[in-house]
Amino acid sequence: MYQEYELIEKIARLFGTPEGLTLGIGDDCAILDPGRFDLVTTDTMVEGVHFDRTFSSPQDIGWRAIATSVSDIAAMGGGPGAFFLNLALGPNDDELFVDGLLEGIHEACEKLSPPNFEIAAGGGDLTSTHGPTVITVTVLGEASPAGPVTRSGALPGDRIVVLGPLGSAVAGLAILQGAFDVDPADYPTLVRAHRRPQPKIHAGALLGLYGVPSALIDVSDGLIGDLGHILRRSGVGASIEIHNIPCHEELSKLASEVGLDTLDYVLEGGDDYELVVVAPPSRMTKVWDLARRHDWDVYDIGEIRSASEGLRVLAADGQPLEREYSGYRHFA
Amino acid sequence: MYQEYELIEKIARLFGTPEGLTLGIGDDCAILDPGRFDLVTTDTMVEGVHFDRTFSSPQDIGWRAIATSVSDIAAMGGGPGAFFLNLALGPNDDELFVDGLLEGIHEACEKLSPPNFEIAAGGGDLTSTHGPTVITVTVLGEASPAGPVTRSGALPGDRIVVLGPLGSAVAGLAILQGAFDVDPADYPTLVRAHRRPQPKIHAGALLGLYGVPSALIDVSDGLIGDLGHILRRSGVGASIEIHNIPCHEELSKLASEVGLDTLDYVLEGGDDYELVVVAPPSRMTKVWDLARRHDWDVYDIGEIRSASEGLRVLAADGQPLEREYSGYRHFA
Repeated sequence: MYQEYELIEKIARLFGTPEGLTLGIGDDCAILDPGRFDLVTTDTMVEGVHFDRTFSSPQDIGWRAIATSVSDIAAMGGGPGAFFLNLALGPNDDELFVDGLLEGIHEACEKLSPPNFEIAAGGGDLTSTHGPTVITVTVLGEASPAGPVTRSGALPGDRIVVLGPLGSAVAGLAILQGAFDVDPADYPTLVRAHRRPQPKIHAGALLGLYGVPSALIDVSDGLIGDLGHILRRSGVGASIEIHNIPCHEELSKLASEVGLDTLDYVLEGGDDYELVVVAPPSRMTKVWDLARRHDWDVYDIGEIRSASEGLRVLAADGQPLEREYSGYRHFA
Repeated sequence: MYQEYELIEKIARLFGTPEGLTLGIGDDCAILDPGRFDLVTTDTMVEGVHFDRTFSSPQDIGWRAIATSVSDIAAMGGGPGAFFLNLALGPNDDELFVDGLLEGIHEACEKLSPPNFEIAAGGGDLTSTHGPTVITVTVLGEASPAGPVTRSGALPGDRIVVLGPLGSAVAGLAILQGAFDVDPADYPTLVRAHRRPQPKIHAGALLGLYGVPSALIDVSDGLIGDLGHILRRSGVGASIEIHNIPCHEELSKLASEVGLDTLDYVLEGGDDYELVVVAPPSRMTKVWDLARRHDWDVYDIGEIRSASEGLRVLAADGQPLEREYSGYRHFA
């Protein structure tokens, strides 16, 4: 296994000094360029809870660590910059694992950086553990000149759209875990949604730049849970129309083959990192305009209502569904 | 055990929104006041590697998590601000443990905040783990208007001073671990140095404010290892005089009682978080001046030399010691 200083040097070589930093890896602190970053997010992934080497390669795990954190910057309408990597490496983490992890991290930085932004390593901490591997990624970002987009600006009358299908990642993981008697190779999109989530980093930055959303969030806990965050923070309610919530055709195929209810997946399945955009109709036209130009999918799934209406999920006939939603995945 | 949202609310209530943040806990990202923070440091502590509940209370563990990270801000001559807390809680972490941990964190924030600075929670991430508890603390700080103090500015002729005794924390831990046949109660200062390290946060900020040091570091890996970082980054050598390196009288007492060599501890014992200050003699007078005013201890331990001289440890007779130094503790 690498010595600590070797691994630090390897990471420093791989990324260079990120833009926006006066000083990166190698001192007591990283030094930020004055006024450059105004967003901070941090996420921890634990082996056996958030990832499983049976189902994900080291490269996949590295990719996912960056993707999930950078997604939070997109969910503020900002652009990502330096990241900090804290690795607690276990007894089975050999050089092959660490090399693969860094490869996946590097690939995610390259492929997920939107135009005019660069994701690169600014520092971190390397430690050992006797237990499962733990990866913490902290990302700094830049809010748009139009200001960061929070969860608390939704107003009654705003429309709610989502930029891609929901439920894919959780279905993909269930397939890998053998929850259904199907061949993972027949569901490449679902499996990939778990292994290589594709947060809408560019879309988040562009929506922030044009000051479009009144509220914005990425779906990490599931639509009900995450929309719930917006409703609570904004002090509003919402109605969403289930027949308009997009699910991937592979999820429909899986549903018909194994007899599951896609609703469970699209409403409560997290880890897709799709963006939920809330905006008044007057500004929502800009979303459709950007979508045409950048080839995004946009699905109009409902409307913000007054707080007294709560969160209502409407069937195709306009009647509210009677069901309980768990919303949170506690401590996962 | 707490639900995730309960614990988040508990932390938010305990700390309020820190100064320097437009928005703290509760959204996808924290939002920083423009231009406020320019220093970032992050540290991970793993149960069984960095702390052991047999020897430390939950309050001690919380204190230590903040102290070690904030020490890195002091080692840049800056002042600490918001911190981010990532907790991976294990199956045995009950509410009593978590309450104690937060109590220790809160106490450290109160007691370690230097005048005009406030350490408070800006965000974080709560997850579960099947393994040992893992605590990551990321701290943002403000460099002095005179600029951050790095490891790379030391010049031949600079003096090297240290602001307190070395080797105490490692000796305290060894006592707690039963490495010697002594009663921990007879060594309260050493034991406390492990349980409740007292980084020189105010001293670091003041030295930075007055632009005194040409290089600065906190002793976390041991004097040889950390001074080595300065020498490598500055491209210089040094000679240090062992008879001038301070050790606490309890360490001397322990040495005579159990027959250990204090040199091993003062040269290679980490985790004391004492500051090593490097400055030209003309500016070092300011350190002595500040020390008188603020009742600091200052020990002049040596001089920066040219790179070709390497690092020489001199005995009382001026002759270099012949010994090997390990310097790093790899992955710990």
